[in-house]
Amino acid sequence: MVMKMDKITLAHGNGGKDTQDLLKKYLFSKLPDALKKTTNGVGIDYPDDGAVIDKVVVATDSHTVNPYFFPGGSIGKLAITGTINDVVMMGGRPIAMLDSIVVGEGFSLADLDRITNDMVEMLKEENVPLVGGDFKVVPTDNMKGIVINTVGIGITEKPIIDRVKEGDSIIVTGPVGVHGAVIVAMQYGIETSLKSDLKPLTKLLEVFDKFEVHAARDPTRGGLAATLNEWAQLSGKMIVIEEDKIPIPEEVYSVLAPTGLDPLSLANEGIAVLSVPKEIEEEVVRELNSLGFSPSVIGKVLEPKNKLNSGIVVLNTAVGGSRILEMPTGELVPRIC
Amino acid sequence: MVMKMDKITLAHGNGGKDTQDLLKKYLFSKLPDALKKTTNGVGIDYPDDGAVIDKVVVATDSHTVNPYFFPGGSIGKLAITGTINDVVMMGGRPIAMLDSIVVGEGFSLADLDRITNDMVEMLKEENVPLVGGDFKVVPTDNMKGIVINTVGIGITEKPIIDRVKEGDSIIVTGPVGVHGAVIVAMQYGIETSLKSDLKPLTKLLEVFDKFEVHAARDPTRGGLAATLNEWAQLSGKMIVIEEDKIPIPEEVYSVLAPTGLDPLSLANEGIAVLSVPKEIEEEVVRELNSLGFSPSVIGKVLEPKNKLNSGIVVLNTAVGGSRILEMPTGELVPRIC
Repeated sequence: MVMKMDKITLAHGNGGKDTQDLLKKYLFSKLPDALKKTTNGVGIDYPDDGAVIDKVVVATDSHTVNPYFFPGGSIGKLAITGTINDVVMMGGRPIAMLDSIVVGEGFSLADLDRITNDMVEMLKEENVPLVGGDFKVVPTDNMKGIVINTVGIGITEKPIIDRVKEGDSIIVTGPVGVHGAVIVAMQYGIETSLKSDLKPLTKLLEVFDKFEVHAARDPTRGGLAATLNEWAQLSGKMIVIEEDKIPIPEEVYSVLAPTGLDPLSLANEGIAVLSVPKEIEEEVVRELNSLGFSPSVIGKVLEPKNKLNSGIVVLNTAVGGSRILEMPTGELVPRIC
Repeated sequence: MVMKMDKITLAHGNGGKDTQDLLKKYLFSKLPDALKKTTNGVGIDYPDDGAVIDKVVVATDSHTVNPYFFPGGSIGKLAITGTINDVVMMGGRPIAMLDSIVVGEGFSLADLDRITNDMVEMLKEENVPLVGGDFKVVPTDNMKGIVINTVGIGITEKPIIDRVKEGDSIIVTGPVGVHGAVIVAMQYGIETSLKSDLKPLTKLLEVFDKFEVHAARDPTRGGLAATLNEWAQLSGKMIVIEEDKIPIPEEVYSVLAPTGLDPLSLANEGIAVLSVPKEIEEEVVRELNSLGFSPSVIGKVLEPKNKLNSGIVVLNTAVGGSRILEMPTGELVPRIC
């Protein structure tokens, strides 16, 4: 059977290979190089939610998570926190946000109230002003629910450009797969005591100030697998990860068991992955611990021995042996962030 | 009959009073003043799609127009142009954009292709780089179609804060009501030869550089009526408009006749309203003409004689007599921008 690919599928939104391919074909390839970034800036020549324009960092993200309220957070908390984290991951100190809310006709005002309460609570907690925004309503036959786009603006003296280097250690700052597992549990009706790890990562700016960090990312949609594959591809290096060192809570495995989903492809909302020189690995881990994180060194960056090894991620499995950790493809859990 | 207002209605998205009231209740009132702007910046203490942060102007807008393709443009062209115009209207020279596309599962890839072509064409025409973005897919039972959020970043030496002053002349730079009439015609199945006025307004930066412009706005959703009412309210002045001086094409009236819609509440996408001191009115009109605009002086700003006249817009009608031009309320044409 030949499938006619003339329509958008959920797979196109997986944040992995399908999204990359779609964006390359339908957007990036159409733009001349000069319109992919500003002079001296970082743009979509490095595809990402954010950009650096001189000392200004700008990040944008559209939040579509469903259910809107989940243990540990809500789409409102996520819309602020997720974009703050995008700014922080580029080395920016968030100084302002804008929001743009699109809701379907008939959306509950009580839910909108809870959502905006959560947005405001996070803005207060992080002390970031909301300086502008937009609000649209779409007829109910075209849209149910809510989409919240947020824009984060930050200032940086030292942008993080995400180029891993040979000899780097790969560190995660906390348990992996938790946010995704919470959403999966609600969507599949699986009982769990897990709460989303959703939280701002602004404290990491202290680490970025003190240490040479070659790459930093919060592995949201597409999870650890997407982040590590993007880094390997961008730098042409090989990343080797030790499965038994990845801190995946038992409860995440329990939730995922009936679904066949891979925790390494699941979204996280309160952890970061860092790539730092091996020599400072211990110091960085100590600093992360003192800031309240629970870091684990999970792997390293190698110079590929041949072209086949360039740009790939190898997972040494807990049972011995190793396999390629692929960029996620196909339909992931929809609307996890 | 008491209507229970517990759900979002299309009226909440009209860009007029209902939108203002909703945002005040559900968002602005929740934020402490300190989180409504940055120090030295312009924020949501002046509600708008954009913000000024030191010399950086940022604007964001979610585009939901339906149909996606219309005479004179498309949602793709609108998503770039509309946000460029928001930046320009704050006195900013656009230097970069980000986009965030959310589509329903099943959306046509051919349509996506046309839309991204139009986005890229406008970016090229305006020579503005696209430096980052996001892409999400939502299941078809929750969303059909496409929402495009864009973020525009600009640099300004002289932000425009939109405070009209006593004695100002109000100038529009071209015909009023055209974009809205085109969308109305398509939605109602009315034949017309009108094309949307959709176009970038970057040339106006030359006017802003040379002259003292007290307020500038592209009257999109909510139209001229919404813009003038916001200005009157913000400054506590009275604005008086001469109906027979407003350049409304005959064809706009023909389209609107069977609908009962008011051209002054219809969205425009390629004109601006300016408020400038009476003394330089002629010079500004001359400059606008030389830049290819078709300006008309349509009214003036007065110091209100009493409290009742503060913050209102008076329309001297073509047939004689005058009436209050209200901030638009109720359900406007849905998804006009």
